[in-house]
Amino acid sequence: MANPIVALTTDFGVGDPYVGEMKGVILSINSKCAIVDLCHEVEAQSILQGAFLLAITYHYLPRGTIHVAVVDPGVGTSRRALLVLGNGHIFLVPDNGLLSYVSGEDQQVGPQLEPLEGYQRPLPDGWQAFALTNSKLWRHPVSATFHGRDIFASVAAHLSLGLSPAEVGEAVDSIQCLYLPMPRWREGVLEGRVTHIDRFGNLITDISNEEVASAAGGITVDVGKRLISGLSPYYDVQRELLALMGSHGYLEISASRGNAAARLGMAIGAPVVVRLG
Amino acid sequence: MANPIVALTTDFGVGDPYVGEMKGVILSINSKCAIVDLCHEVEAQSILQGAFLLAITYHYLPRGTIHVAVVDPGVGTSRRALLVLGNGHIFLVPDNGLLSYVSGEDQQVGPQLEPLEGYQRPLPDGWQAFALTNSKLWRHPVSATFHGRDIFASVAAHLSLGLSPAEVGEAVDSIQCLYLPMPRWREGVLEGRVTHIDRFGNLITDISNEEVASAAGGITVDVGKRLISGLSPYYDVQRELLALMGSHGYLEISASRGNAAARLGMAIGAPVVVRLG
Amino acid sequence: MANPIVALTTDFGVGDPYVGEMKGVILSINSKCAIVDLCHEVEAQSILQGAFLLAITYHYLPRGTIHVAVVDPGVGTSRRALLVLGNGHIFLVPDNGLLSYVSGEDQQVGPQLEPLEGYQRPLPDGWQAFALTNSKLWRHPVSATFHGRDIFASVAAHLSLGLSPAEVGEAVDSIQCLYLPMPRWREGVLEGRVTHIDRFGNLITDISNEEVASAAGGITVDVGKRLISGLSPYYDVQRELLALMGSHGYLEISASRGNAAARLGMAIGAPVVVRLG
Repeated sequence: MANPIVALTTDFGVGDPYVGEMKGVILSINSKCAIVDLCHEVEAQSILQGAFLLAITYHYLPRGTIHVAVVDPGVGTSRRALLVLGNGHIFLVPDNGLLSYVSGEDQQVGPQLEPLEGYQRPLPDGWQAFALTNSKLWRHPVSATFHGRDIFASVAAHLSLGLSPAEVGEAVDSIQCLYLPMPRWREGVLEGRVTHIDRFGNLITDISNEEVASAAGGITVDVGKRLISGLSPYYDVQRELLALMGSHGYLEISASRGNAAARLGMAIGAPVVVRLG
Repeated sequence: MANPIVALTTDFGVGDPYVGEMKGVILSINSKCAIVDLCHEVEAQSILQGAFLLAITYHYLPRGTIHVAVVDPGVGTSRRALLVLGNGHIFLVPDNGLLSYVSGEDQQVGPQLEPLEGYQRPLPDGWQAFALTNSKLWRHPVSATFHGRDIFASVAAHLSLGLSPAEVGEAVDSIQCLYLPMPRWREGVLEGRVTHIDRFGNLITDISNEEVASAAGGITVDVGKRLISGLSPYYDVQRELLALMGSHGYLEISASRGNAAARLGMAIGAPVVVRLG
Repeated sequence: MANPIVALTTDFGVGDPYVGEMKGVILSINSKCAIVDLCHEVEAQSILQGAFLLAITYHYLPRGTIHVAVVDPGVGTSRRALLVLGNGHIFLVPDNGLLSYVSGEDQQVGPQLEPLEGYQRPLPDGWQAFALTNSKLWRHPVSATFHGRDIFASVAAHLSLGLSPAEVGEAVDSIQCLYLPMPRWREGVLEGRVTHIDRFGNLITDISNEEVASAAGGITVDVGKRLISGLSPYYDVQRELLALMGSHGYLEISASRGNAAARLGMAIGAPVVVRLG
């Protein structure tokens, strides 16, 4: 692609000038670069939520997009910075698990483990990765605490000008992944949790629509001491509280014309259980 | 216009990735499309406020702009999705009243009615409208709950590439409008209300500057148990509380170097009364 | 530069449509203009904070960028509107002190004075400035309370098309500056204060990294009744509370994987003291 887009996913928020500085660095290198804000309100320093939000959104951008995804509590330590080519997109990320869901399907599942424990996983078939070690592509002086601006944004701008991915540094053959509790049916029960709460108070879970749909009969959703019977096709105003197959591929709990999170007193991480019948 | 701009007005907020996904869908179809965020913080699901904010802002964009305006509590139900050509702009909207103020001047007034009651209104002279029924222009699979991304953004992108409006679906001859309480002088009294509170705590009302200006003598504004005598020409630091002809065409209440909404304890919908003398 | 970028720094927030309207005005004049949001969450009407944030961020944009910086409590009064050429960038600003830090190094220091007192300072060597008085370049009608849209954005768009700066109005030879308390070592003590609190709760101070680095021996930071010994090179998870040379050139106080502002109960303006030893 001649003019790839640079898409930004961070936990920097939209109140501080950090995102604007990243854009300034990119435009200083490629003044014609198209930059898109995908999401900047990942919970501060939550790699797990960043990994989830990145995975459910990146594919709405065109193939070939350069994704700069920065949720980086370990900035300045020895954690690696990577360029990862996978699923037709380019990801510039700290090597801390941010690609856990994107690289997803066949990975280890460890529901009994803390999700923030991780492991180095061999690259999926057809993927490539490089460490960002070619410091000629960075903005100098490089700060110790803002590699999103000084390394990731700068490298992204050079890539948008046509730089070959292999130029960013040496090839690597594994990436850090978190143990993800990917909910599966077990004895008629599907145990998941809330991964995101949106502006409307909708609860987005980590229970995939496919898994829900695989139930032969009806289901009941157990959430915040309430039981929701069956799925609704849309935000049905006739129902105070409802469950539906969300537009991002995961089960959602919603209060029609209301705020489900407030009504149920739920926060990110709260359990959601689906039962047969 | 060869390269129309796509402008976005929604109640999606800037915290969630929803707006970013819409942009991704647009850029996947037209990678050179210029996209502008007009406003994403319409009160969640408030068609009335969305209609007001859209009307006071859309005309700052160039004529020919494609406005995607999505405040859509009825998404997934049988409410229509429309393309409306009017006032030199193109609007892609759910048919729920979002164009009530834009299509405005001569519409029915029913201050005694709940504003959320609406009616199908014949198109104003010179306007055209089409239902978005040509599913070839949509992004598939179409979710039940996010037509902003899967239908409106996708159709907007095709229009930005030069698609004729008539290609989006069959022509329609009416659009849904809300009964709006457009304040008019009645026996020396002008009764309106707060339609928007901005970041500074300024109260923006639905009382038009023209209506206020038509008073021959002085006026007094009655708001939150306080009386404000006369209009100020700007944010006068000599006055604790002031009323002025706002920069968007409507009467504003402001506290100079302070927050009027907090000081008066006012919320959206609160009454504002202007009296002669 | 053939296609300069327009960068926006304001206290308008991202919730209201004000920034979108400015962009609409710019694009109505130059539909191909590249516009970047640098920061819109300057504390409402805080010229001091706006001046600081502008100074630590503007230089990440390419030289030749047209900065529209609007924190303008005096809009509608007789305060001047200016175009200022300095440090390789173009600034469109109300003449109220917003360029105090940008124009900075050798300015008067008055720690005993209220920072909001200001003075007209002769232009630094090599700088030029013009009053925005050529009303042909404005958007009409000009509102009394939104010059960001009707004057600054409109003039910026004309400049982005190649208009010569001298066309905006007559030359002026001074700009308004605030008395800034630029902390310097005095008898082994460096007294500063918090100028910004970011999304992570990091406290950014007005104590420059250079000044801190000039200490020969170790230092102790006294902040919110806590003492922090020495500097950390990054967000060290082994330390509950830490001080570091920030990525914007100023000393920062941070709580690793926590919120320093909340933990210390600090707000903007709170004192931070660095001592030798």
